[in-house]
Amino acid sequence: MSIKYVLFFSFISITGFSQPAKSLKDIRVNQDRIEKRIFELAKFGKGPDGKSYRVAFSKADQEGRAYYIGLLKNAGLEVSIDYAGNIIGRRKGNDPTKKPIAFGSHIDMVPDGGNYDGCVGSMGAIEVMEVLNENKIITEHPLELIIFSNEEGGVIGSMAIAGQLKKEGLDVVTNSGLTNREGIKAIGGNPDNIHLVARKPGDIKAYLELHIEQGGILDAENNQIGVVEGIVGIDEWEITVEGFANHAGTTPMHKRQDALLAASKLVIAVNEVINSYEGRQVGTVGKVAASPGAYNVIPGKVMLGLEIRDLSSEKIVKLFRDIEKRAAEIALNTGTKISFRNLNVPAKPALMTSAIQDKITESAKMLGYSYKRMQSGAGHDAQEMAQIAPAGMIFVPSVGGISHSPKEFTKAVDMANGANVLLHTVLALDKQ
Amino acid sequence: MSIKYVLFFSFISITGFSQPAKSLKDIRVNQDRIEKRIFELAKFGKGPDGKSYRVAFSKADQEGRAYYIGLLKNAGLEVSIDYAGNIIGRRKGNDPTKKPIAFGSHIDMVPDGGNYDGCVGSMGAIEVMEVLNENKIITEHPLELIIFSNEEGGVIGSMAIAGQLKKEGLDVVTNSGLTNREGIKAIGGNPDNIHLVARKPGDIKAYLELHIEQGGILDAENNQIGVVEGIVGIDEWEITVEGFANHAGTTPMHKRQDALLAASKLVIAVNEVINSYEGRQVGTVGKVAASPGAYNVIPGKVMLGLEIRDLSSEKIVKLFRDIEKRAAEIALNTGTKISFRNLNVPAKPALMTSAIQDKITESAKMLGYSYKRMQSGAGHDAQEMAQIAPAGMIFVPSVGGISHSPKEFTKAVDMANGANVLLHTVLALDKQ
Repeated sequence: MSIKYVLFFSFISITGFSQPAKSLKDIRVNQDRIEKRIFELAKFGKGPDGKSYRVAFSKADQEGRAYYIGLLKNAGLEVSIDYAGNIIGRRKGNDPTKKPIAFGSHIDMVPDGGNYDGCVGSMGAIEVMEVLNENKIITEHPLELIIFSNEEGGVIGSMAIAGQLKKEGLDVVTNSGLTNREGIKAIGGNPDNIHLVARKPGDIKAYLELHIEQGGILDAENNQIGVVEGIVGIDEWEITVEGFANHAGTTPMHKRQDALLAASKLVIAVNEVINSYEGRQVGTVGKVAASPGAYNVIPGKVMLGLEIRDLSSEKIVKLFRDIEKRAAEIALNTGTKISFRNLNVPAKPALMTSAIQDKITESAKMLGYSYKRMQSGAGHDAQEMAQIAPAGMIFVPSVGGISHSPKEFTKAVDMANGANVLLHTVLALDKQ
Repeated sequence: MSIKYVLFFSFISITGFSQPAKSLKDIRVNQDRIEKRIFELAKFGKGPDGKSYRVAFSKADQEGRAYYIGLLKNAGLEVSIDYAGNIIGRRKGNDPTKKPIAFGSHIDMVPDGGNYDGCVGSMGAIEVMEVLNENKIITEHPLELIIFSNEEGGVIGSMAIAGQLKKEGLDVVTNSGLTNREGIKAIGGNPDNIHLVARKPGDIKAYLELHIEQGGILDAENNQIGVVEGIVGIDEWEITVEGFANHAGTTPMHKRQDALLAASKLVIAVNEVINSYEGRQVGTVGKVAASPGAYNVIPGKVMLGLEIRDLSSEKIVKLFRDIEKRAAEIALNTGTKISFRNLNVPAKPALMTSAIQDKITESAKMLGYSYKRMQSGAGHDAQEMAQIAPAGMIFVPSVGGISHSPKEFTKAVDMANGANVLLHTVLALDKQ
């Protein structure tokens, strides 16, 4: 098949610029174009305070989508909005019987978010199309570029495609103030038919996504590319610590059932349990509230919010069991009662396909980039797409690991590196 | 002097009932009358929900005061309301040149408070007057019964008498919705002249106060009487722990600057420091707030509220210095910054007069009650009165140590025991 491509390049060299036939592996994306488009997209939703509010379904989101659709059309793609509000840009392949290779990301952001998050992958995806066009390459498989709707509000667009979106999900009010149902309508979807966008396993040959790494690992270790092994599962619990509220002046120290003291021991125990195993699991107590919450009253009740993430559901369960054991000891020693309520957060771990990880690795190697196999601690559309297609993710460094913040920043060269890996992984998959 | 009293009793036996002359030390209060009046007072401010809202200056407080003034008048006392709204009931002594012996408490309560708190001392005080009347005893010293205004809102009435009330204090909005200034007017005081109620050291021979113990020490140890050594000083700090807010999924455990983890270590350190010294000092972290406060974000900032109480100001400083040291270590080990802001709570320790403690002890012994010398962890009007007069406090058990709660309860026999100790301490002081 590579012969065919070389023929194409010979064609360029005759009809276009006079240059030697380019080998496929020498093709590179246009770094400046990616950067320019990142800056252009960033204008949509930027407030006078310098902060960005391009939350899904907002006016800024709609403007950003219109801008992106313009890019797709200019690139000659067949553009449509599916019932879930996802933007789909199709590029024909040589063999119409083959299943499409899909890739993409999202352009919506969290409130006061950053300009790189899903935008790097979105601009990387259109860049792949541009470079294929410029090099007059027609792939064997059709290509499908997807900009998913409302990623930040719960990967809504990709859940719809994976057939995972429940009706109740449409009634959730989003950061735009609209429900998902209203928002999807506002961006040209049709929530009444949303079930029709679901794809079956086998409908898509593979799904790839380029994204910034939202941790600081690549940046700290000077790695250029992250080959994602999987997206961690998340489980969350509300913990209630019940002691006895009493006068902080008149109650002797040894007579107290101080819920905050017990809760503090538990916060430390959570940290110790998570650190007691090898691996990349994380556990966080991010929420705390004590009642009655006065200087002169011993807290009678404390609520904690616990989250555990790992690539293995079994490991999450194991860590939680250890935390439960520690909690029972703490309750006994502090005269308190500690109970856990699981929040049924539906984020199961999503492993990326091993063969696709290999293809991404080979592309990074071929391109001469340093790389690291790693997990994603954050959720992505790829976790949903992995349920219906072989999937892979490419990470690029985010300076200082900052994300979901206006301070988020990824260097242009890193964005280009990521897009080059995306391009060459698409080409490699196309050969299969 | 006891001869004179006996003569009085002889007089009773001639003109009234025919009974043998009673020795002074055989006089006892009327337990049933105290209990009946506690129940009567409890009606004022009781809502249909069974909870009590007799906060200072409220309609219920005014009704309760009117009821109490009626008791004073019926007991033949000369009643006045001073400029601070304190109710004063005067009973003449044999020697008008002598300074008055004062005693009293308060009848206002915290929102949803209990019916024993200041009421036991208030009903104990009028009971002393009733028993002196019934036994036709005229003391050498004038007696002054004081029901202080707005005790629960910051010992306002006693601060005024001690000359400690600042102008700004009058503008503080109280639980009634009125400022102290408005409230004092509403109960018949005159805030414009409030400075005139201040007494000089020497104006009052001694001040005594009967009160429920708001801890559970007497109840747990089956002691009938608490001889108060002093009212603890209180100091408060707002502690700020600054870490770095970051993604709870993508930030590896070893890269975190988790403000809540550091704060938890500090809560435990506070407890350890307080427990590391002999004594009855208490230290409490009663408030906590973490930001941003989400399951999926590592807390970047935590605010804690710290309070330390002890009879010795030097010990409070020493404990705080130890806590500061521990905080510095924790900050270093967790990559956080910990700072303390003193809230300038103006509660210095107030020691009760040793000679009066002895008189209370002798009275309890004479009456055959078990007793214990103890500190008061809660604030009382006596702490202000101690600034201008020798002062003493008598505690009686509160079942389970519950206070500031509708569940607050003191047995009638314990109320009577306390009133008997108050009576005999007044008589003992009168002999000096």
